[in-house]
Amino acid sequence: MQTDALTYAKNHRAEALAELQALLRIPSISTLPEHGPDMQRAAEWLAAKLSAIGLENVSLLPITGGPPIVYADWLQAGPAAPTVLVYGHYDVQPVDPVEEWLTPPFEPTVKGDHLFGRGTTDDKGQLYTHIAAIEAYLQTTGKVPLNLKFMIEGEEEIGSAHLEAFVKEHQARLQADAALISDTHITDPNTPVIVTGVRGLAYMEVTLRGSRQDLHSGMYGGVVENPLNALVKMLASLRDEQGRVTIPGFYDNVRNLSAEERLVLNQDGVTEAEIMAETGAPALWGDPAYSLAERIGVRPTMDIHGIRGGFVSSGQKTVIPAVASAKVSMRLVPDQNAAEIARLFTEHLQAIAPPTMAVTVETLSGAEAAVVDLSAAALEAAAEAYEQGFGQRPRYKREGGSLPIVGLINQVLGAPVVMMGFGLPDDNLHAPNEKFYLPNFYRGIETAIRFYEIFGRRM
Amino acid sequence: MQTDALTYAKNHRAEALAELQALLRIPSISTLPEHGPDMQRAAEWLAAKLSAIGLENVSLLPITGGPPIVYADWLQAGPAAPTVLVYGHYDVQPVDPVEEWLTPPFEPTVKGDHLFGRGTTDDKGQLYTHIAAIEAYLQTTGKVPLNLKFMIEGEEEIGSAHLEAFVKEHQARLQADAALISDTHITDPNTPVIVTGVRGLAYMEVTLRGSRQDLHSGMYGGVVENPLNALVKMLASLRDEQGRVTIPGFYDNVRNLSAEERLVLNQDGVTEAEIMAETGAPALWGDPAYSLAERIGVRPTMDIHGIRGGFVSSGQKTVIPAVASAKVSMRLVPDQNAAEIARLFTEHLQAIAPPTMAVTVETLSGAEAAVVDLSAAALEAAAEAYEQGFGQRPRYKREGGSLPIVGLINQVLGAPVVMMGFGLPDDNLHAPNEKFYLPNFYRGIETAIRFYEIFGRRM
Repeated sequence: MQTDALTYAKNHRAEALAELQALLRIPSISTLPEHGPDMQRAAEWLAAKLSAIGLENVSLLPITGGPPIVYADWLQAGPAAPTVLVYGHYDVQPVDPVEEWLTPPFEPTVKGDHLFGRGTTDDKGQLYTHIAAIEAYLQTTGKVPLNLKFMIEGEEEIGSAHLEAFVKEHQARLQADAALISDTHITDPNTPVIVTGVRGLAYMEVTLRGSRQDLHSGMYGGVVENPLNALVKMLASLRDEQGRVTIPGFYDNVRNLSAEERLVLNQDGVTEAEIMAETGAPALWGDPAYSLAERIGVRPTMDIHGIRGGFVSSGQKTVIPAVASAKVSMRLVPDQNAAEIARLFTEHLQAIAPPTMAVTVETLSGAEAAVVDLSAAALEAAAEAYEQGFGQRPRYKREGGSLPIVGLINQVLGAPVVMMGFGLPDDNLHAPNEKFYLPNFYRGIETAIRFYEIFGRRM
Repeated sequence: MQTDALTYAKNHRAEALAELQALLRIPSISTLPEHGPDMQRAAEWLAAKLSAIGLENVSLLPITGGPPIVYADWLQAGPAAPTVLVYGHYDVQPVDPVEEWLTPPFEPTVKGDHLFGRGTTDDKGQLYTHIAAIEAYLQTTGKVPLNLKFMIEGEEEIGSAHLEAFVKEHQARLQADAALISDTHITDPNTPVIVTGVRGLAYMEVTLRGSRQDLHSGMYGGVVENPLNALVKMLASLRDEQGRVTIPGFYDNVRNLSAEERLVLNQDGVTEAEIMAETGAPALWGDPAYSLAERIGVRPTMDIHGIRGGFVSSGQKTVIPAVASAKVSMRLVPDQNAAEIARLFTEHLQAIAPPTMAVTVETLSGAEAAVVDLSAAALEAAAEAYEQGFGQRPRYKREGGSLPIVGLINQVLGAPVVMMGFGLPDDNLHAPNEKFYLPNFYRGIETAIRFYEIFGRRM
């Protein structure tokens, strides 16, 4: 039956692309409240599609305080066959700076081998490989080789704040022998990668208020402190010259790697030349005690994402703003705990607040780091599917990004998680001109078809 | 004739207020290119008004690269009478954060004794006191007690970049025995202040580029430096713990004050309690080696006015921006030179640029600090006019703000400059809810009427 599905997928590439484009046209930016109706539209579009291809129990499961989860299943493979939970997300990142996009972010545009648009890779395009794979089975044979459950959320780009409560509430419904996620990238078009760990995240916002209202820097400069001046001083002090975070206790629970673990991590590690080519950075940077692969995969980081306050239009304004704020996130590794790191950050920022400022710190989201059980049958099935689909055994890599669902599936459902991605390193995730390499879209569909077959046989 | 003019002014307060409101409705924000047509409209409005009250040679004198200068004169007092050059500016500051305004910034609104709106004090309202004063003379007696020239520019809020060339080109036309400027504030409604010095300004923009495009902080955090992280480190290093600027050579030319000068400066100096009440700041700040009055009046400062880059909307985005920039200005004192300070700033920022960043520094504007000749007859005339108008001799104060025209008049025209202001410290200059205390508007008109009479007699 796999042969029929593969043939169907090959013959229906144009339809799959057209359907994906329809989904991409919905600007489902989860972080911007004005896109609330678009979130709902994207969820409804997916529900309609999953029904149309023959999935059952299709429903939009409500979440308190967030957009709904799209759920669907197909459980007719029988109790002897394994059950796979496919996870994806229908929300996307904002598009600013929008002036740097070469094509409209929500008008998905094919140029050569690439499909450009927000969400093409992260994650609508990668998610759609599974929808197309299931469609290929059900349209040709009326069956899938295993039991399937879909869970598609709308808050991944804002830290999946409500997902833990949801997974706990629906634990029985979501139970599976393995989870499958296509939301990561591979090394190059011919070198697949199974991600073996993700970093956690603590996303914070710190706000400084100096005066009651904005002030004229001529009248008050030199006697009333400027919140932007105070903020840069506080933020600059959070990392030392080597880029290590200076918050007391920050590294206390960071798990040390054995020499063997470091060896494995570094054997296929990314090179300086690769990163410089991908990013155009004039020089790389980071803690010299660790390799590039280690700094991305197993070391925590801190990044400022934006600073607000004062005047940033073109031209000049001599203002001492009343208020300044910064968005700061920290990527976390095992065994750091996101809530604990958020607490340490908050306490430290309060401790270093100058007497001239009223400082408030807010936790915007948290996610736990997670590592994957390499011995699980699902991991081996994924490696075999990749080998058939891409002609090469996958590499194994720790990922620097965060995926809250991974830790939740490990902890709440106790199922191994397969992160089988089809993106590329230069797909401009979270940046202007996000794209998806279309040959990988089609190979992704075929690799998913193979995985269902192999894993269905395996257990 | 002064009595007639004073009576006319008292009887025409409502008309003066209505006319000022018409001028305030024109959103002449010089720093925002989209307001170019409004700049022209404001200039034309003033020219029409100056013609209507009987001034001569009214013209919009073009400036290369900027909005026109409004010029007008009345030279019929004869060669024995002195000539006064009245300076003002018709451009205003931007209005953001616009959500903090309690009334629309360009719909001037009277609430109690205050007129709220952008430009009410800075400088349309203060400038209008002179228009109303001249109108009062010409409408009642057909004469003014001295020769008058008006020069009203449209680039004061962006550093008067083209004013030096203009003043040099039109030196003969602008020649005067004294210049009169109402663009400063007094201590309280009953305590007038003659400003005896202004600080200079060097307004800079520094831009850091790291990568070719925005990056995902999960994929590249820890190996590619974030321009916002690098920028806060560079900016934080520009001041030491006492708030002193650390740029090499920055203080080299700062003129030392004699013990006597410090005594004069401090005798009526502003108090900590006054500044805290005006601003609501929880604590004051600054170089402990100098008093508050000295820090505002005779010490240089550095302020960050805005930081751009990354994501500042509500919510979260885990981006490493490709580019980050900051607007930074330094208030300068005698004998610092604005161009020299801009050069030192630029060289220092380049010197501390990390290898991970391409750093560019741009000078947005410069203005020289200036001090006033206290022995000039015009200064004594202003003191007497204030005493008659406000019932009190004025205080003498160094102002922390910058007014490029003051240095230019000193240097190019060689005329003493009288800074006779009618604003108040809590008028929210450059901030939301700018206002003008209306009793001061009317007293300002009357004080201007008295000044023309006294100075006309004096020389």
